[in-house]
Amino acid sequence: MRVGIAGLGLIGGSLALALRSRHDVRGFDVDPAAREAASGEGIATVDRLEDLIPAEAIIVATPMRSVLPTLAALASHTGGAVILDVASVRGPVDAFARDSADGTRLVGMHPMAGRTGRGFVSADPALLAGRPFLVVPTARSTVEAMAVAGTVARDAGGVVTVCSAAEHDRLVALTSALPLALAAALAASAADAGPSLATFAGPGFRDTTRLADTSADLAEALLVANAGNVVAAIARMRTVLDELERVIAERDASGLREILERAARGRALLG
Amino acid sequence: MRVGIAGLGLIGGSLALALRSRHDVRGFDVDPAAREAASGEGIATVDRLEDLIPAEAIIVATPMRSVLPTLAALASHTGGAVILDVASVRGPVDAFARDSADGTRLVGMHPMAGRTGRGFVSADPALLAGRPFLVVPTARSTVEAMAVAGTVARDAGGVVTVCSAAEHDRLVALTSALPLALAAALAASAADAGPSLATFAGPGFRDTTRLADTSADLAEALLVANAGNVVAAIARMRTVLDELERVIAERDASGLREILERAARGRALLG
Repeated sequence: MRVGIAGLGLIGGSLALALRSRHDVRGFDVDPAAREAASGEGIATVDRLEDLIPAEAIIVATPMRSVLPTLAALASHTGGAVILDVASVRGPVDAFARDSADGTRLVGMHPMAGRTGRGFVSADPALLAGRPFLVVPTARSTVEAMAVAGTVARDAGGVVTVCSAAEHDRLVALTSALPLALAAALAASAADAGPSLATFAGPGFRDTTRLADTSADLAEALLVANAGNVVAAIARMRTVLDELERVIAERDASGLREILERAARGRALLG
Repeated sequence: MRVGIAGLGLIGGSLALALRSRHDVRGFDVDPAAREAASGEGIATVDRLEDLIPAEAIIVATPMRSVLPTLAALASHTGGAVILDVASVRGPVDAFARDSADGTRLVGMHPMAGRTGRGFVSADPALLAGRPFLVVPTARSTVEAMAVAGTVARDAGGVVTVCSAAEHDRLVALTSALPLALAAALAASAADAGPSLATFAGPGFRDTTRLADTSADLAEALLVANAGNVVAAIARMRTVLDELERVIAERDASGLREILERAARGRALLG
């Protein structure tokens, strides 16, 4: 099918590279340099967002803050194209869809994939291969539109999982936002340690703080755009941290073991 | 020199394998299976702790809870051997040394190295190569004893750094204990998420919770044996977490950026 991709960064670029062998892919980015980089890798590009139309599917893969404006620019005249957006928080898109015209067809498609690099230069179809793609229906998702989302996700190498916007945002608050918040809090509380930190910090400190390198844009999307769920997730984690602090202060080894066993159950869920 | 090693687990076994080409190494472990495993790799072993004497250096590499009993068993009759202990918290050994007889020679030598595997089967000299070895003087460290510690640490592949017990324990509370506490709190707070956790959790969640797999013995050593410093480190981190929670709840994007910049400064210290 003809697939337009708005936003040729890490995720949009990876989708373009993953889909082009099976689909007629055209990309757009507001940044001419990103369009040039994609052209250089053989991706057909257009110079204006509206030139992605006509298409069977248009993927919106912009930074979070541009998702709603881009959806608004496209929604009224897609000529039947299904809009798939990769926003990593679903609440705002869910609200947008409820207020959209009847003819709009909009489905969330969030690939659970990422890495530290940014931009088209970091794009790689291997990033998506075998990763869960969360297909999230909106008030403007028809059965046919859901099928298009499923086809695109599978053809990009993803494993399709369908979930509601509410479940999505509750779970990513736990699995993406909370680790980011803890990594940032840990790294920030080490900012005053001085140069000896490098001597004392082993791979454990490095891994636990890795997510603190998340770009400010993505961090804002994950934390602020999903604030209600994130604050609730922090509160639940804080209950465990309080308990842990108590058993440490009281040198209660068996209490510590109980918390570590609960933590092991959480880790075991990862398979 | 002749080097005895008490405790042939991950660290003691790695030290035995790293040192044997340049020194006459003999190992002991309370577990006959560990002695057999080491013998199978060509490490000379003895059946009783006291048979490590005579030696120029005896490394105590037992689990934390056995360090003080092993030091007590050795200290009175080492015949001049320098005792090097790898305990990952220095406070208890520091106190032990102050109460020891004048002739005792005791130096801390803590390799900043680790991995998830345990026991001699996971031992590997590569684990130690290029890692910081923190050489920590005690009240029973002579200049000659410090030199022995330095030689052993360098010959095991380590990079020697000298620091006080107080500085050591304050910094490992930040770099080892606090990441472990946060990883455990995060993993434990995900224990009730059910099987969908595996779908939603990407590499970020996995890395941030990795330290929750630390063995209960080591976790107890890092958290409980260094309780004062760990509780203080949790308190400092909690101040940042409170601030982070506030900017999220208030959807304060510029406040979030400030915290992320502080976190980036902490990460930058790692080099």
